[in-house]
Amino acid sequence: MRLRVTYHLACSSRLAGEQARDIAFEQTVELPADAVPSEVAARVAGRVESVEAIGRGRSRAVISFDPGAVCGDLPQLLNLLFGNISLKTGILITGVEWPDELLAAFSGPRLGIAGLRALTGARGRPLLCTALKPLGISAPQLAQLAYGFARAGIDLIKDDHSLADQTTAPFRERVERCQEAVARANGETGGNALYFPNVTSIPSVMSERAGAARRAGCRGVVVNALPAGLGAVGAIAATGLAIMSHPSLAGAFFHPDHGIAPEVLLGDLFRVAGSDAVIYPNVGGRFTFSEATCAAINARLRAPLGSVLPSFPVPAGGIDSARVPHWIERYGADTIFLIGGSLYAQPDPAAAAARLVAAVRRHAHG
Amino acid sequence: MRLRVTYHLACSSRLAGEQARDIAFEQTVELPADAVPSEVAARVAGRVESVEAIGRGRSRAVISFDPGAVCGDLPQLLNLLFGNISLKTGILITGVEWPDELLAAFSGPRLGIAGLRALTGARGRPLLCTALKPLGISAPQLAQLAYGFARAGIDLIKDDHSLADQTTAPFRERVERCQEAVARANGETGGNALYFPNVTSIPSVMSERAGAARRAGCRGVVVNALPAGLGAVGAIAATGLAIMSHPSLAGAFFHPDHGIAPEVLLGDLFRVAGSDAVIYPNVGGRFTFSEATCAAINARLRAPLGSVLPSFPVPAGGIDSARVPHWIERYGADTIFLIGGSLYAQPDPAAAAARLVAAVRRHAHG
Repeated sequence: MRLRVTYHLACSSRLAGEQARDIAFEQTVELPADAVPSEVAARVAGRVESVEAIGRGRSRAVISFDPGAVCGDLPQLLNLLFGNISLKTGILITGVEWPDELLAAFSGPRLGIAGLRALTGARGRPLLCTALKPLGISAPQLAQLAYGFARAGIDLIKDDHSLADQTTAPFRERVERCQEAVARANGETGGNALYFPNVTSIPSVMSERAGAARRAGCRGVVVNALPAGLGAVGAIAATGLAIMSHPSLAGAFFHPDHGIAPEVLLGDLFRVAGSDAVIYPNVGGRFTFSEATCAAINARLRAPLGSVLPSFPVPAGGIDSARVPHWIERYGADTIFLIGGSLYAQPDPAAAAARLVAAVRRHAHG
Repeated sequence: MRLRVTYHLACSSRLAGEQARDIAFEQTVELPADAVPSEVAARVAGRVESVEAIGRGRSRAVISFDPGAVCGDLPQLLNLLFGNISLKTGILITGVEWPDELLAAFSGPRLGIAGLRALTGARGRPLLCTALKPLGISAPQLAQLAYGFARAGIDLIKDDHSLADQTTAPFRERVERCQEAVARANGETGGNALYFPNVTSIPSVMSERAGAARRAGCRGVVVNALPAGLGAVGAIAATGLAIMSHPSLAGAFFHPDHGIAPEVLLGDLFRVAGSDAVIYPNVGGRFTFSEATCAAINARLRAPLGSVLPSFPVPAGGIDSARVPHWIERYGADTIFLIGGSLYAQPDPAAAAARLVAAVRRHAHG
């Protein structure tokens, strides 16, 4: 089976056939058809499977590629899908059909939805997550927040994705203090709250930080997947740590007529890269996704996909805690709700978290 | 000194002050101003330095950041500059002023223009580069092309950026054969042609491939910087290998009103990440940059930048070999011209390369 990619092209169907053929050659042999031996072109160039008009001067083309061109290599996958054509205009990737051989090569999440549920002990209900912030407060202050959230019953307490190794809360001190605080709270409540530090950095440092997080007792981490490189997600996944991927920089790809559709980038690509949970900006918050886009991301993260486990969608980015029951109705139980600012806007974030937890548990049993 | 970032905002100056303040908080404390202790905001949030109208409903804002928020960490730099706001609309980064402390932390290219000139022995003239392609031919066939190009006097012979570890020309075999072919040609001509294999992969494999390239005798490599992660460029730079960075995926950032301007991403960021040479799609080829953009990239790669060495611009993407003398007049001697398709369009690419070399040397001495 071949890797089938659907492109929306900002041109009429009269021109779309030619443009699709250009893409098929540009992304593989990177030469015009007349400069490639026909035997090589037949084996290696992409194949235009179909081209059709979809109205308003736009067309849809399906191009298939030999999965062998990817070598089971995530950076090469990104390069094949959108590398050179990113530098053109009017080309949007809207769907990918994955051959099993490629899915097996990428491994995907090691825990997935079931594995993260087992770690937290949360069954039959959505998980609640919040972030430790702001950048600029000390490690003991972050640990105190973590303690309060764990006591309140929040399942996952993550570093804000901008916490790196700033002198205000250096990585090692922050991880030890926050993990200790959450473990202490769990000891008092009998709960299983987890603390996920942000380990994003250059590859060697990221690997060191993941090791330090494991040794401190953490079961998972946060990664800014695109700044780090999607291939770096797989390296951390292989250590057995759960990975919550953050969409930092991803918006560069989300133009309506050029880029990679959110459900493909955050749904398919972040998942096959090894993310157990993927954060995205929910509709109605301070970012710009539509409800249809959010539903499509949820669907792509959870759908059957060869040997690749399903991942948790993590809607975020300005979810009002009062609206969480509404979003549970919409998105279902296999969702992690990340509520940050809405808790910090209240005088006592931990007390606000406790009220949120109570509301969600009432809803789950209602 | 602070890190000063210039943003063009797709809104009138009446709204731009508020949007600039939102960016300053979103990219640091990631909370609204009223949810952050004022002492923390004063230390950590970005500072809006200026806002002015620039016509047609657009505004320019300069926001400065504490360089300590970056931790000398490239992924965190990308996150600070454009991470969350990538998910908004109408925000374009058009300039960055770098504090020396940050430049020192990133190191930048280890060889730069002078170092690459020393390796090739080319003085007072531009360098010529071509690519081994297409994907799908065998390692011996690629090596034969490499031999012909080296005999013809091409300075840098690089893998096509889509050559990974495909079974048609596996990495180890390709590197050994191509490096041997170029060394043999150098032995015959007394020249110093260099072969740069593409080592892009996930971090652990990329590091292995860079080591194998060094052991085979290569002095430099090609990296697809964004698919690999900009931080991975620095890891390879630290090994002493020269790095030619390819702009695969970079076009996602190049929208006219949202993203990171090409001269900032390819000029500043690829350079500080450690690229000795940066490939970009030249005006008039099959991609979309203007001549002004190309000139701006050249300027940002070569300009004084604290302790960071200058990098070679590498215009590419459909340069006709007949037009190279024209581009030398425009771009000057501190340029590497990457001519691929124009050579492959001719019956004997090596003979075409020899004619190109002769034309460039005549021009340099004319």
